[in-house]
Amino acid sequence: MADRSVHYTVMTLFPEMIEAGLHTSILGKAEENGILRIDTVNIRDYTENKHKRVDDYPYGGGAGMVMQAEPIWHTYEACFGEMLARGERPRLIYLSPQGRVFDQKMADELSKEDELVFLCGHYEGVDERVLEMIVTDTVSIGDYVLTGGELPAMVMIDAIARLIPGVLGNEASWAEDESFRGDLLEYPQYSRPEEFMGRKVPEVLLSGHHARIEEWRREQSVIRTAKMRPDLLEKAELSEKERNLAKKYLQ
Amino acid sequence: MADRSVHYTVMTLFPEMIEAGLHTSILGKAEENGILRIDTVNIRDYTENKHKRVDDYPYGGGAGMVMQAEPIWHTYEACFGEMLARGERPRLIYLSPQGRVFDQKMADELSKEDELVFLCGHYEGVDERVLEMIVTDTVSIGDYVLTGGELPAMVMIDAIARLIPGVLGNEASWAEDESFRGDLLEYPQYSRPEEFMGRKVPEVLLSGHHARIEEWRREQSVIRTAKMRPDLLEKAELSEKERNLAKKYLQ
Repeated sequence: MADRSVHYTVMTLFPEMIEAGLHTSILGKAEENGILRIDTVNIRDYTENKHKRVDDYPYGGGAGMVMQAEPIWHTYEACFGEMLARGERPRLIYLSPQGRVFDQKMADELSKEDELVFLCGHYEGVDERVLEMIVTDTVSIGDYVLTGGELPAMVMIDAIARLIPGVLGNEASWAEDESFRGDLLEYPQYSRPEEFMGRKVPEVLLSGHHARIEEWRREQSVIRTAKMRPDLLEKAELSEKERNLAKKYLQ
Repeated sequence: MADRSVHYTVMTLFPEMIEAGLHTSILGKAEENGILRIDTVNIRDYTENKHKRVDDYPYGGGAGMVMQAEPIWHTYEACFGEMLARGERPRLIYLSPQGRVFDQKMADELSKEDELVFLCGHYEGVDERVLEMIVTDTVSIGDYVLTGGELPAMVMIDAIARLIPGVLGNEASWAEDESFRGDLLEYPQYSRPEEFMGRKVPEVLLSGHHARIEEWRREQSVIRTAKMRPDLLEKAELSEKERNLAKKYLQ
């Protein structure tokens, strides 16, 4: 059933967090189907420090602790030693607020890779030398500070893996008409019942007129984008009528 | 020990995912100290459908399923009935790619709230009527599509909760000199050993000259920001010397 076999490795100090977060829901099914395999590796298992320490004070002073180069390097060697011996290296993403900002285009691009590694550090710092040695991409999921790279790795894996053919199963069609596939935000959705606490589903959606439904949804997308994310309108391909509609809702 | 007592409620179809993700690491400690309480509520427990269904086809057609209004409303009433009876309503954040984009400023603002609710939907849609009734803020963690709102809720909670006094414990000082506190990206960090696989720690960091260390770090921040996130430089407060340095690294 699997067209491809994709393998992700997550290097982390909190493997149980990654496992609980990713093995439920859709990605769990993809793992059962053999499309996707996610391995988590505990960096703490590779420290040579007898107290199992993996961090130490920063040279030059400052608050917080820095993750040391050695345990990370040993973890990397243990996982990819054979590949390295062949003169190859895996694509390795380091999650950091210092990175390029993740977006749907990057998710598309990364969904074509069969082997990806995610390195989750303490967010206050990882020794720069090991990053220079192993990292191919430094990526940030947004302009905010988090405790560690675990949640960002899970976010990236979710966004990327759902674009791999077969992962969403018969729900595969979703991925195509969602926000950021097009240039506009998604229109509002309604489901049963027709009336909920006095609020009715917009009549056009019950009409069965596909062309009118499409037109209404497109208008709603334009209005919503103008209200919430006017920055997205610049790149959007709009008709003149749509541009005029958007103008009415821009503040 | 607790200065404040903060309470977050997460409305979700995957409570075990939220619990595993947030109760480890720093937030777990904050819960033990009584500073923070996080409750997860399973929306599926509040459906009146005998097959425990919580979603149905969208009116007007289209791919994917839409989460229905009723179970979400019943969950909300069960959690906040008393508050609603007093004529109050909680601040409720709906995680959606259609939202305002989350950033450190929003995290700061939300860290001042003692009661927050996070509604995690399927990302392909939630019935608009219940959103109109209960949502106070629609927030997106970035321009990418995810399977559901659970990971975004965890990301927001992590970013927000670590700003609550006491949550980071004796590591509290971090929060202040990290990226997005200032206008620039963080400088590189180094820890023991002084030499790692032939790579040495920059000498200035071993010098003990605080002023020179500060100057070097500031320069590194400017260079890194110019290379990775030139968009941040516009708002940054730079000296003329720093502006010239940045120019050299802008592409």
